[in-house]
Amino acid sequence: MSDIQTQFVKNVLSGAEQNLKDAGSAFAPSNIALSKYWGKRDAELNLPINSSLSVSLGNLGTQTEIRLAEKSSVYLNGELVDPADSFAVRTLEFLKLFPMVGTHFEVRTENNIPTAAGLASSASGFAALVMALNDLAGWALGPRMLSMLARLGSGSASRSLSHGFVQWHAGTADDGTDSFSERIDTEWSEFRIGILELSTARKAVGSRDGMNRTVETSALYKSWPAQADADFQVIRRAIEVKDFPMLGKTAERNALSMHATMMSAWPPLIYLQPESIEMIHKVQRLRDAGLELYLTIDAGPNIKLLFLESSVKEVLSEFPHLQIIKPFA
Amino acid sequence: MSDIQTQFVKNVLSGAEQNLKDAGSAFAPSNIALSKYWGKRDAELNLPINSSLSVSLGNLGTQTEIRLAEKSSVYLNGELVDPADSFAVRTLEFLKLFPMVGTHFEVRTENNIPTAAGLASSASGFAALVMALNDLAGWALGPRMLSMLARLGSGSASRSLSHGFVQWHAGTADDGTDSFSERIDTEWSEFRIGILELSTARKAVGSRDGMNRTVETSALYKSWPAQADADFQVIRRAIEVKDFPMLGKTAERNALSMHATMMSAWPPLIYLQPESIEMIHKVQRLRDAGLELYLTIDAGPNIKLLFLESSVKEVLSEFPHLQIIKPFA
Repeated sequence: MSDIQTQFVKNVLSGAEQNLKDAGSAFAPSNIALSKYWGKRDAELNLPINSSLSVSLGNLGTQTEIRLAEKSSVYLNGELVDPADSFAVRTLEFLKLFPMVGTHFEVRTENNIPTAAGLASSASGFAALVMALNDLAGWALGPRMLSMLARLGSGSASRSLSHGFVQWHAGTADDGTDSFSERIDTEWSEFRIGILELSTARKAVGSRDGMNRTVETSALYKSWPAQADADFQVIRRAIEVKDFPMLGKTAERNALSMHATMMSAWPPLIYLQPESIEMIHKVQRLRDAGLELYLTIDAGPNIKLLFLESSVKEVLSEFPHLQIIKPFA
Repeated sequence: MSDIQTQFVKNVLSGAEQNLKDAGSAFAPSNIALSKYWGKRDAELNLPINSSLSVSLGNLGTQTEIRLAEKSSVYLNGELVDPADSFAVRTLEFLKLFPMVGTHFEVRTENNIPTAAGLASSASGFAALVMALNDLAGWALGPRMLSMLARLGSGSASRSLSHGFVQWHAGTADDGTDSFSERIDTEWSEFRIGILELSTARKAVGSRDGMNRTVETSALYKSWPAQADADFQVIRRAIEVKDFPMLGKTAERNALSMHATMMSAWPPLIYLQPESIEMIHKVQRLRDAGLELYLTIDAGPNIKLLFLESSVKEVLSEFPHLQIIKPFA
């Protein structure tokens, strides 16, 4: 919590009236970026260097309930979290930005996705938290305003306020008030995501630190912002015209380029595991053999497959344990 | 073979007298780049975008004998090579650049390193070939001139004319006559290279095609030439003052950055295999635990470890099957 963050919250809430309830609750979906966010232009306000675009994971995400309490406590999947645990610390630090609601909170969070394995539970976590807070406080803020508040908790959380395709505009203002997310008004019912969970281990280096290390030490990162912006535009266009190969190719190259910027950092930052490389090679082989299959990878070892409904049978025969998500079901 | 290549050979040989012998023979060492060559500014003359620096592998390399014959033939490790095989084709195409020596040749080549597995047998191969040709023709050319001839066969061959540390100056002239290699006058008897042979399979994409694909399609490649030149300078300085951590860190980051530029190409070019990632993680863990150990990787899956004599025992306990090379023995 800093003065800059406190002031930012005041700006966002300036037009909202407060009508406190007994409790607030909300669900936010996890999201997978098709063009990635990697690098901050402002660490306090979590302002990104480049715009990004994601697809939300339907009913995979976080359900959160919040109420005022005598003493702060955080529950994760039914269990009380040690107040010294980073999850509790980050949650309660974030809530200190909202003294107009209260001083102590009881927060109950249920995740149905593995924590910290590249499946962005912090994204749905902070999104659900601000939505539940909005419900508790009765501010009646829309997703655009909520996306800016969620961003303070975790950058990618700003993309978890809506279902479907979501674009996060990097913005240019120093005060952060033009860096927000909004839903893209396109349904693509045939769109499928396959989760190949290779590891549920906690990451050795969190995204925040990994991003900073990359920006500070990777010479190749210099070329990233321009590529990320170009990819963002191409993917937005591909969604508009439903050009799946254009979307898939751009998303895969964008993800591998992000990992490439990390690989050239020092010390080298390699989230990929041996199994990740095996799967990257396998997807390339299948594509060379004619299957319309692409992949993306967040800052972790796990591979997410991108394909259309028409390829489901063939994809499942190659990846029998795949968890398939229908973002527009 | 092109007019431009023919003219280049004439330029290089312009000062040399020819005194033909019955046969010529030579050995050239393989080399491992500490700062890599990746990207051409001229494909016909194999002119590189950036300078590079290597260390030769002592007695690992290629022994070649050449003589004039009625009919061309190429032997590899004692066996006659099918004239349609790319090895024979490249060898005989190259020799067509030297009509002043003869029209048909018998070439006998012995490699004591695996072919096409990232251990640069084409480097020592073309270096040995031009040295043997120099012997046969009696030109008495020195390594600088020979490095320019070898370059026409394979870029990295220009670094295989000498033992020890070798620098290949990228040069700036369009005619290619200032792009040559020379030995660095520093012995470092404690310097060790460990070969972790993970795969002897032929590469799916050769270096030449991989390089072109990277330059043409990878957005991150834009940042490579400046980094490669900076790394070259740092490594040259590290050799001069025998600063091993400076050399190791720079070489490892340079290699991973080269692989990063490939990873962001399209289609993605990933020479790394699952075992390569496992070894990269292992080296990082050992270094974090205090071992002075670094790695480099050419355009292939195999990992080369860099360390000093004082670490041999510890390194061998972690990698019992390591083949250790003493470049200055």
